[in-house]
Amino acid sequence: MKAVRLHIYGEPPTVDKVAEPELTGPHDVIVRVGGAGLCRTDLHIRDGWLADAVPVDLPLTLGHETAGWVHAVGPAVEHVTVGDTVICHPNITCGTCPACQAGQTMRCVKGLNFPGITRDGGFAELVKTSARAVLPLDPRVEPAEVAALADGGLSAYHAVRKQLPALEPGSRVVVIGAGGLGHIGIQCLVALTSAEIIAVDTNPEALKLAEQCGAHYVVEADGGQVDRVRELTGGTGAEAVLDFVGEDDTVPAALAMLAPGGRYDVVGYGGTLTIPTVQLVLGELQVTGSLVGTADDLAVLVRLAAAGQVTVRTALYPLDAANEAIADLEQGRVRGRAILTPGAAA
Amino acid sequence: MKAVRLHIYGEPPTVDKVAEPELTGPHDVIVRVGGAGLCRTDLHIRDGWLADAVPVDLPLTLGHETAGWVHAVGPAVEHVTVGDTVICHPNITCGTCPACQAGQTMRCVKGLNFPGITRDGGFAELVKTSARAVLPLDPRVEPAEVAALADGGLSAYHAVRKQLPALEPGSRVVVIGAGGLGHIGIQCLVALTSAEIIAVDTNPEALKLAEQCGAHYVVEADGGQVDRVRELTGGTGAEAVLDFVGEDDTVPAALAMLAPGGRYDVVGYGGTLTIPTVQLVLGELQVTGSLVGTADDLAVLVRLAAAGQVTVRTALYPLDAANEAIADLEQGRVRGRAILTPGAAA
Amino acid sequence: MKAVRLHIYGEPPTVDKVAEPELTGPHDVIVRVGGAGLCRTDLHIRDGWLADAVPVDLPLTLGHETAGWVHAVGPAVEHVTVGDTVICHPNITCGTCPACQAGQTMRCVKGLNFPGITRDGGFAELVKTSARAVLPLDPRVEPAEVAALADGGLSAYHAVRKQLPALEPGSRVVVIGAGGLGHIGIQCLVALTSAEIIAVDTNPEALKLAEQCGAHYVVEADGGQVDRVRELTGGTGAEAVLDFVGEDDTVPAALAMLAPGGRYDVVGYGGTLTIPTVQLVLGELQVTGSLVGTADDLAVLVRLAAAGQVTVRTALYPLDAANEAIADLEQGRVRGRAILTPGAAA
Amino acid sequence: MKAVRLHIYGEPPTVDKVAEPELTGPHDVIVRVGGAGLCRTDLHIRDGWLADAVPVDLPLTLGHETAGWVHAVGPAVEHVTVGDTVICHPNITCGTCPACQAGQTMRCVKGLNFPGITRDGGFAELVKTSARAVLPLDPRVEPAEVAALADGGLSAYHAVRKQLPALEPGSRVVVIGAGGLGHIGIQCLVALTSAEIIAVDTNPEALKLAEQCGAHYVVEADGGQVDRVRELTGGTGAEAVLDFVGEDDTVPAALAMLAPGGRYDVVGYGGTLTIPTVQLVLGELQVTGSLVGTADDLAVLVRLAAAGQVTVRTALYPLDAANEAIADLEQGRVRGRAILTPGAAA
Repeated sequence: MKAVRLHIYGEPPTVDKVAEPELTGPHDVIVRVGGAGLCRTDLHIRDGWLADAVPVDLPLTLGHETAGWVHAVGPAVEHVTVGDTVICHPNITCGTCPACQAGQTMRCVKGLNFPGITRDGGFAELVKTSARAVLPLDPRVEPAEVAALADGGLSAYHAVRKQLPALEPGSRVVVIGAGGLGHIGIQCLVALTSAEIIAVDTNPEALKLAEQCGAHYVVEADGGQVDRVRELTGGTGAEAVLDFVGEDDTVPAALAMLAPGGRYDVVGYGGTLTIPTVQLVLGELQVTGSLVGTADDLAVLVRLAAAGQVTVRTALYPLDAANEAIADLEQGRVRGRAILTPGAAA
Repeated sequence: MKAVRLHIYGEPPTVDKVAEPELTGPHDVIVRVGGAGLCRTDLHIRDGWLADAVPVDLPLTLGHETAGWVHAVGPAVEHVTVGDTVICHPNITCGTCPACQAGQTMRCVKGLNFPGITRDGGFAELVKTSARAVLPLDPRVEPAEVAALADGGLSAYHAVRKQLPALEPGSRVVVIGAGGLGHIGIQCLVALTSAEIIAVDTNPEALKLAEQCGAHYVVEADGGQVDRVRELTGGTGAEAVLDFVGEDDTVPAALAMLAPGGRYDVVGYGGTLTIPTVQLVLGELQVTGSLVGTADDLAVLVRLAAAGQVTVRTALYPLDAANEAIADLEQGRVRGRAILTPGAAA
Repeated sequence: MKAVRLHIYGEPPTVDKVAEPELTGPHDVIVRVGGAGLCRTDLHIRDGWLADAVPVDLPLTLGHETAGWVHAVGPAVEHVTVGDTVICHPNITCGTCPACQAGQTMRCVKGLNFPGITRDGGFAELVKTSARAVLPLDPRVEPAEVAALADGGLSAYHAVRKQLPALEPGSRVVVIGAGGLGHIGIQCLVALTSAEIIAVDTNPEALKLAEQCGAHYVVEADGGQVDRVRELTGGTGAEAVLDFVGEDDTVPAALAMLAPGGRYDVVGYGGTLTIPTVQLVLGELQVTGSLVGTADDLAVLVRLAAAGQVTVRTALYPLDAANEAIADLEQGRVRGRAILTPGAAA
Repeated sequence: MKAVRLHIYGEPPTVDKVAEPELTGPHDVIVRVGGAGLCRTDLHIRDGWLADAVPVDLPLTLGHETAGWVHAVGPAVEHVTVGDTVICHPNITCGTCPACQAGQTMRCVKGLNFPGITRDGGFAELVKTSARAVLPLDPRVEPAEVAALADGGLSAYHAVRKQLPALEPGSRVVVIGAGGLGHIGIQCLVALTSAEIIAVDTNPEALKLAEQCGAHYVVEADGGQVDRVRELTGGTGAEAVLDFVGEDDTVPAALAMLAPGGRYDVVGYGGTLTIPTVQLVLGELQVTGSLVGTADDLAVLVRLAAAGQVTVRTALYPLDAANEAIADLEQGRVRGRAILTPGAAA
């Protein structure tokens, strides 16, 4: 089968011919990939940023955000059967450790075990994952339409869910980055809160998408974004900031946008946060990081999508066009999420 | 092997010779039973109270509260191996449904699936359960000493945990019933709160045990218990009442002991609760039921026990003495928990 | 000035000429009444239901749900000045007891102190209340349009707010009673959750209002309402039921509509709740009563209204028509809330 | 009367003769000071660190942590009377703004209004504060014994209370700084959790006090403290770190002590926090600042102290010895809290 593989850090992946994955363990599930989302983390992997934190032998098939149809199941798999439409939580978990038993999917004692990051992933016609990572969907759902929920949407919803207690009526929330994650985050905020939503992005097209998703205000990140947010919040700042970028440009701006008691959640990463402790204390601020989300988060998000309250804006690419998709993402030409569709024609 | 089996509702179980359980599914775990607790629910099963709510074909090996050593494991079981010391969560769960993924062990889509209630249980030398129900323990732990945590302790801790937000410093909590559940509940309250603990029981020996467990006040349930609790709380009543009995004698008394905003959690069952809505509204009361607990609850409770903060008071009986243990329980002669020790001699 | 006064329990109140209230304490605030809502509790007061629980000497000017304009203030009042548009929290509180300091407006150590229930209320041209009960509004707000938020809306929002943790995406909530409280509760649910809302009422006109307020399904309470709710929830029942009636007709139906783990909040009152403890335990149910709401609840609700997310449906009556309004309420002819407008013409 | 006054930033305060405070507003309360705690913030004020953030005209009577006896009350004060023993919350609040009504004492719309910081404070025989800041105590309490609860203890308890959800059985919490705040924080942790407590300080005498207060482990901050905490936590780090110092020495160490999902709360201040966003995200960390505490926090803490679960270690000084107390604090010679006792002899 065809797969998009990274051979050398810093160089573009190539579309290779590789052997199909095979069932080897009792919980294995092989999924024919209907859609696999492309994410800024794929760029970070290509560039070797995660090579120390999450070591892996190259070559590696990329793609950690997948939906499709069940192709084969191991003997201990009961909840799905061949042909079922499914979406894959990105982490493969053991199901028996204390974290799994408590629903803390990302804290499994086995550590991060993501197809596309620690083992071959979803930029291929078939991907091998495990029973607990596979969530059945309504058979009428088109996998390429929802694949972006599996990681980008999941991370966005997880971040929104943590902030709900701060987002009472009358509160204001800033969403930094109206791309693959942000445009889903805005829809979750609309569905789940009555907060005023202010979207901030450098790209006017992304801000248009933010408005379509329900942002009440959009602010171009042209250097005046902190002042503009202060103005829109009557001078006090926002009760919460969700930063889907997390780079050196956004972090200090985000901190400067917070109201007293405000909460800043970082989902994107790459920059460094610096803050005097007296500012943390006098403002009684909260700064958190968000790492993907739980299987329960994904199940809830899928319900929101099924109810029509969250819709992913997608740009579809055949598998052979993977590097074109990567170029579009890097150069800011993707609105919403770029999705490869390797197994769709099968 | 020997097993204590119920053949006819309303009649005493008998000690029978039966075939040993065999591995049939990939997640099966067979446990040699070091200790299996006897619980008021076993009496309710014998008397047929649960025959409608949880139908099962007789004969049935009783015993839903078990600890022991792993005797055999199916091919998909990885987290324990033969010889490991383990405690068993009473419910066998699928691990893949939304409730399991969210850590809601008691809401598994497969329903209640308790050895000793819906299939053969732990009053036997060997019991068959499933991977996710098996929690490994320190090998130095004696199973008979901790078996009571598996159901009674679990139910008590689950109930306490739910009430923690109401149990701030200066609050008062009433524990009704200082038996198998109550004496563990009191220890959990001591470990986790600074609330004043008032134990209520009909039996003076049980009240002595309550004091040893850390209750600040003990009150004999002699008809004057409501007045006594009101007196001990300066007339306002208690912020929380945990009722480990839940019979017609305790329910109205419990309601009458509540302070405004008070919370009443029912763990034991058998009686009927009746309350005018105006009393619920003016008092802004909360009434809840508690059903066993989650796998995470059990893991946390085991940590409390490992730290020496919870110790089970046990009365040990060989398997052949099962009906003697039942008689002792029915006639109020058991302090703490009666434990059968069928596999201990193996 | 004119006031609607109750002289004898069980008889209709009369419109009397009485002396205007005077400032006597440093925190007194006298409000010219722009709108005062009529509530089922006024009928309960007239009928003497509360005479034991909340004793008061007759005659009593009714009206515990008030908005208007500040007419006079005592020397220690700083946050409002004569002419300000205000809405009144129904309870007069001390501000210094532990409950007040913790924001527990309804638990003030001074007890319930409601104009219209324990002292002369708002069915009059002027009403005397106290500084902490007075919340300033935007001067463009018409008091008669928002008076119903002061008690009915407050009670509805308070009940909704408590249920938010249970109302995740995919959950279902039943609202029993689509009258003065219920039609506001439905709007709060729409604004704050993505839950499916099922409104139940005996009156087809009330159900029309429920639909206009955003209920996804409406069910006539014709004896088949439990079956219908079970059908609409795929057989499982609803995650939450808010009962704005709380009478003997609604209580058992509400309990029968609950899903496992379901939460039943009683806001209206009059009936009696009866439930076997085994049902509470096996269902792990939660039953709560809701008593009005806090000053913070009122402030949040006013923000929702200011943002246009909650609008009160009102039926306006001059003060002289008080008994006509009462008859309309008793005979089910009021949609939304009946509001007296005693000071509006001043 | 005598008062300790700061005349010039950077120079020692002097003991001056000043006029007694007088009642001017209806809510004024004048307290005869039984004890007034000396705090690192007093050093920061002296050194002008807060001159920009909290501007004030000099000279200023220091002392923002006070307990004593009521000396005089304004006409609108009802809950205390002359002679009552009281402790003073440090912030003077309006009682009517939304924050006050919600129990958010530190967010009053009037801003920070602390005797000893923004107006004359408690290092004097008499101090003027306001009704809502005055909490009555049992008359048998000696004010100098509890004065440290008013700010240092309050800040410590507030920080502990926020972390309670993270401090389940089996968790580990690090307390950095076992001085005036830390030794109270440790006692609160013992009373309210079953977490293992690891105290870290540069001073061996402070670590002895930490052990007496109930810390399970003490670690000298000699450069190896991060390794030692990692070792004590089996390599994973601690679930929570409370940093009562917050200087450049403690902040990076604190971050390095955190387990995945760990929470770092900064109470002391002075240093700068720097962290790559990828570390926040991969660790899913939470960093918060803590600013004093609410009136409800103080009431709860006073209950803990009344129950004997929190005891302040004090070093008493007459008012004339203020600069000796300051020198002892700066040179690490104070164990627990230094307390001036200006009005005790009156």
